Amino acid sequence: MSLNEFTLIDRYFTRPPRAAAGVTLGIGDDAALLEVPAGCELVAALDTIVEDRHFLRGADPAAIAHRALAVNLSDLAAMGAKPAWALLALTIPEAQEQWLEGFARGWFALADRFAVELVGGDTTHGPLTISVQLSGYVERGTALRRSGARPGDVLAVTGTLGDAAAGLALARTARTAGESSAAAAELRRRFDYPAPRVEFGRVARRYASAAMDLSDGLSGDAPKLAQASGLAAHIDIGRLPLSAALRAFATPQQARDWAVSGGDDYELLLAVPPSRLAALEHEADGLGLHLTVIGECREGTGVTWSIDGAAAAAPAAGYDHFR
Amino acid sequence: MSLNEFTLIDRYFTRPPRAAAGVTLGIGDDAALLEVPAGCELVAALDTIVEDRHFLRGADPAAIAHRALAVNLSDLAAMGAKPAWALLALTIPEAQEQWLEGFARGWFALADRFAVELVGGDTTHGPLTISVQLSGYVERGTALRRSGARPGDVLAVTGTLGDAAAGLALARTARTAGESSAAAAELRRRFDYPAPRVEFGRVARRYASAAMDLSDGLSGDAPKLAQASGLAAHIDIGRLPLSAALRAFATPQQARDWAVSGGDDYELLLAVPPSRLAALEHEADGLGLHLTVIGECREGTGVTWSIDGAAAAAPAAGYDHFR
Repeated sequence: MSLNEFTLIDRYFTRPPRAAAGVTLGIGDDAALLEVPAGCELVAALDTIVEDRHFLRGADPAAIAHRALAVNLSDLAAMGAKPAWALLALTIPEAQEQWLEGFARGWFALADRFAVELVGGDTTHGPLTISVQLSGYVERGTALRRSGARPGDVLAVTGTLGDAAAGLALARTARTAGESSAAAAELRRRFDYPAPRVEFGRVARRYASAAMDLSDGLSGDAPKLAQASGLAAHIDIGRLPLSAALRAFATPQQARDWAVSGGDDYELLLAVPPSRLAALEHEADGLGLHLTVIGECREGTGVTWSIDGAAAAAPAAGYDHFR
Repeated sequence: MSLNEFTLIDRYFTRPPRAAAGVTLGIGDDAALLEVPAGCELVAALDTIVEDRHFLRGADPAAIAHRALAVNLSDLAAMGAKPAWALLALTIPEAQEQWLEGFARGWFALADRFAVELVGGDTTHGPLTISVQLSGYVERGTALRRSGARPGDVLAVTGTLGDAAAGLALARTARTAGESSAAAAELRRRFDYPAPRVEFGRVARRYASAAMDLSDGLSGDAPKLAQASGLAAHIDIGRLPLSAALRAFATPQQARDWAVSGGDDYELLLAVPPSRLAALEHEADGLGLHLTVIGECREGTGVTWSIDGAAAAAPAAGYDHFR
């Protein structure tokens, strides 16, 4: 490393010590010492993003940092957990100050929003790869899981679907196409700066029977919730929430395909007992977030699809990112 | 990924559920749910290893897995912590079954030895990079830190130094030189399968005033302990413990240089009040590990060196792995 690893960490990632919740010992020793609040379980996620796979070569380093942390925040959101501490493993081809400055800016902008403290990690020379480990906690026994859905529960999603896939398509062609409409800018923002539904996940613990985050697209992820809960999921494609930006930008068919199979939206998919749906919708409203019922849980296995009530073929499952 | 990510995880990394200590929810959901024992702090480390940087291209996948976990175990050993739960982020160019089988074998051999449960992670396509996040715990207020040394403490190291650097030199030339002596095999083993000093770290909590693990070489790491403790370290190079294998393989000068500046030994460097040294040596003996006094802590800053009592120039600081 042209800059010493410790110089790097010091310059960009160490901030003045502050009384951060639960941090007994942060960056600078062999490991961090942390205090999980009494009555809580530890919740731990680890996600890696790789250049050319999860973000485009030459992407804004602030957006890369945002993504690396956001995908983990989204995992904790899906558990209903409160995020607290992050470890950052940054593998970079070379230590470019401007890149690091942008990365640190993107990191701390999102970390501060959710009071996530950076407590350690590792910088290494190598192909651009970022692994973030995020820990948090949840009141014992109250975590949302994928396995808690029951037949009769409705399936609902937060926000809108397909926007990030459209944003990625735009990002790939931006240099040649020069798309500059407000809709395009909004879709790019949805891909570059996913908004993890942390506050909603905390609230949803009290109403939902199961939850997961949508990282690989609904057609790839819904079968995982169905399998974990030991039931069948039915989804009506006609009910999938589409943003005004997506409807302005894409044909109805393309918008639908992205909403079904596109990844990287980082919305939550929830199973909710019908008796609790209205209350959860009200909570979502309070957070400025829309909740849309897209289907239901049934006895059986697998996922079935319809379009406005008429049976539809299963879409190709799974979103293989940049493939 | 040619094999679906979940198929991969299922096939090689999921084992039959067992009542693992503190694991409420392991692999398969958005995040793991874990229970830190009452009265303990959480201890968390994250380390990444990259092909061509921390291990040679074509290295045995079992050795790669061992290293990825061992470097984190060594971090927890240096804190005196009990390891418990690992998250594995595996970025691989392609899903080769033979490679994955070897990796899983190396992983579980070491994980089982220290009762480390794999509770989640991530597999991704990309240049071979492995990030492991290891969590454990330590009785509140008893963790070893780098910052606790006091003037008058002796400096001691576990085991022998320089072996891994010799082993790496052998690994690099093995194809052409065909070195096959017992000494060479031992040095290769020391590089390929570092032995984290976990049990000793647990014991050392009761005697040592500070500790850190030696990953970057004594000349690179000793200044970190001195700086963290706000004092000067003095080290006599003539006292550095050299293995019989290293003495058989290398010239005295080369052996000394590797012991001073070579990395990857993953021994512990400890500051110990003189009054507690004999008791700690006795504990080490009980674990079949030798503890060697190599110097002392003094008022001041930085690290000074001598050879058999005569002042010596400071060696080049830091071990830049494969550079």
